[in-house]
Amino acid sequence: MKAAIFNKNIELVNDYKKPEPKKGEALIKVLMAGICNTDIEILKGYMGFKGIAGHEFVGEVVEINDADQTLLNKRVVGDINAACYQCKDCMSGNFHHCPNRSVLGIFNRDGCFAQYLTLPIKNLLEVPDAVTDESAVLVEPLAAAFEILDQIHIKPTDRVAVLGDGKLGLLISLTLNLTQADILHIGKHSEKLKIVENEQISTLLLNDVQSEMNKSFDVVVEATGSVSGVGLAQNLVKPKGTIVLKSTLADNTKLNLASIVIDEIKIIGSRCGPFKPALKTLAENKINVKPFVSKVFGFDQIKEAFECSQRKNVLKVLIDFKEE
Amino acid sequence: MKAAIFNKNIELVNDYKKPEPKKGEALIKVLMAGICNTDIEILKGYMGFKGIAGHEFVGEVVEINDADQTLLNKRVVGDINAACYQCKDCMSGNFHHCPNRSVLGIFNRDGCFAQYLTLPIKNLLEVPDAVTDESAVLVEPLAAAFEILDQIHIKPTDRVAVLGDGKLGLLISLTLNLTQADILHIGKHSEKLKIVENEQISTLLLNDVQSEMNKSFDVVVEATGSVSGVGLAQNLVKPKGTIVLKSTLADNTKLNLASIVIDEIKIIGSRCGPFKPALKTLAENKINVKPFVSKVFGFDQIKEAFECSQRKNVLKVLIDFKEE
Repeated sequence: MKAAIFNKNIELVNDYKKPEPKKGEALIKVLMAGICNTDIEILKGYMGFKGIAGHEFVGEVVEINDADQTLLNKRVVGDINAACYQCKDCMSGNFHHCPNRSVLGIFNRDGCFAQYLTLPIKNLLEVPDAVTDESAVLVEPLAAAFEILDQIHIKPTDRVAVLGDGKLGLLISLTLNLTQADILHIGKHSEKLKIVENEQISTLLLNDVQSEMNKSFDVVVEATGSVSGVGLAQNLVKPKGTIVLKSTLADNTKLNLASIVIDEIKIIGSRCGPFKPALKTLAENKINVKPFVSKVFGFDQIKEAFECSQRKNVLKVLIDFKEE
Repeated sequence: MKAAIFNKNIELVNDYKKPEPKKGEALIKVLMAGICNTDIEILKGYMGFKGIAGHEFVGEVVEINDADQTLLNKRVVGDINAACYQCKDCMSGNFHHCPNRSVLGIFNRDGCFAQYLTLPIKNLLEVPDAVTDESAVLVEPLAAAFEILDQIHIKPTDRVAVLGDGKLGLLISLTLNLTQADILHIGKHSEKLKIVENEQISTLLLNDVQSEMNKSFDVVVEATGSVSGVGLAQNLVKPKGTIVLKSTLADNTKLNLASIVIDEIKIIGSRCGPFKPALKTLAENKINVKPFVSKVFGFDQIKEAFECSQRKNVLKVLIDFKEE
């Protein structure tokens, strides 16, 4: 099959061995895939991953190695954490933290920048007809935004700041907006901020943040991807408030722990999230992810797609496999 | 009145002006006071506080500037955070985080190392006869331990590690032990650890911590007062687990934020706590704080008392004012 091999560069090959689904797994023909910042980090060496990257996809199940054939020929999205479903963590429902897990296109499992991939059928969800391929690809990052609502209680009376106007930051604002809380989205790019402004979410350019705003937010979500965002989050959060960390910052970061103790701040790390509510939200059209799609490339143009995805004001870049 | 003035040194004076209770405040004759590590930090310059330090006390109300005279002549303990009871934080019940608050012997308010002090009557609780003066002085640090139970849900099925065998760390173990959770207390001093061992709490010397223990605790309470404790807490906590920070570390501390995000760890700062359950626990004799009292000094020996409190294996040092 055609596949894109990641090893500091992207190498497009035609003769990669088509994967075979293990017991309980499905073989999925990729219809469309999305480029995530994590893929760009992987290209730079993140997680030491070498192989087929990519974890945002929608595909069609073409083979199932299991008695349960329910999903055969269905259009699906899939949770990227392939757990062992046997260990103590799995038994307590913590599949996303299974110590034996592989992660699609990130850790120990080839990803979706190829014509085919495999995942456990337990990881798959059928995509309703109302959700287009383009939108379905965004279920994975939208699920990561939903993870926040699964972790903490955001009250409709809360004042929330979301920092960072990358794709994830913007999806977070749209998702937290479901709570009817009072959200202020702080970013650097007025073009990108328009996506949330169109949903009646207040925005502010980073340079316009005033010190009067310090200690005035119940919840601050840090999604800037930079260390400075953590400092700003510490300034903005109220005593007894919560900081949600969404950026995976590689280095050790200095934190003022004294103020965390004195003001009794909560900090919570937040990673992958639940696909089901994300998919439901798209099916019900409660969040519109179409404005996130900046450009669609064919698989043969994957290198150009990666270049494009790193350009200013570009949000989601998709790869369409349907011509393959 | 006699008072101990803190300004890098302790100066004992005989002619300090007796404080006058403002509207809503009580004048309290100090019966007994305790030396806290924070007092030692204040002596070194913490919070830039100059004046009468001390915030752990039991006393007798001798005057009340209010129509409500209920507590007159009663033996009381008192919450050290004197809030304005008028601002937005106070109106939402966050008295401990009132931005206009003064803090007894720590910030903008003279403390209890003197014959008299004042506090708002709202801060006072009558001490039941069953609680001795010696035990009552320990209500304040015990309340700080109870704060953890007010902030997070510790389940009887949780595995909990408490780091640090100072007074606060030990009081935390005894308090969390009320939940029937499985507690391991990790410290450096086998003598001090005996206090919790006597209550059937498991203990371990820091040098005996094994890497197999990594990622195996639902909750880790950091009360070592040192930066290294934060790193150990990060090692020990499970994915999705909680780290409670009790040490007020002065400097910026490096944290591995990536692992906090990937493992979705919660960190929560924890400071002063509720007096009522702490006092109730002492009255019902469910926690025995007598083993914490290492030595009692007269007020004239306050300098010796401070020296003593910094010696190895010394826990709580009390000052008895009843001879004054």
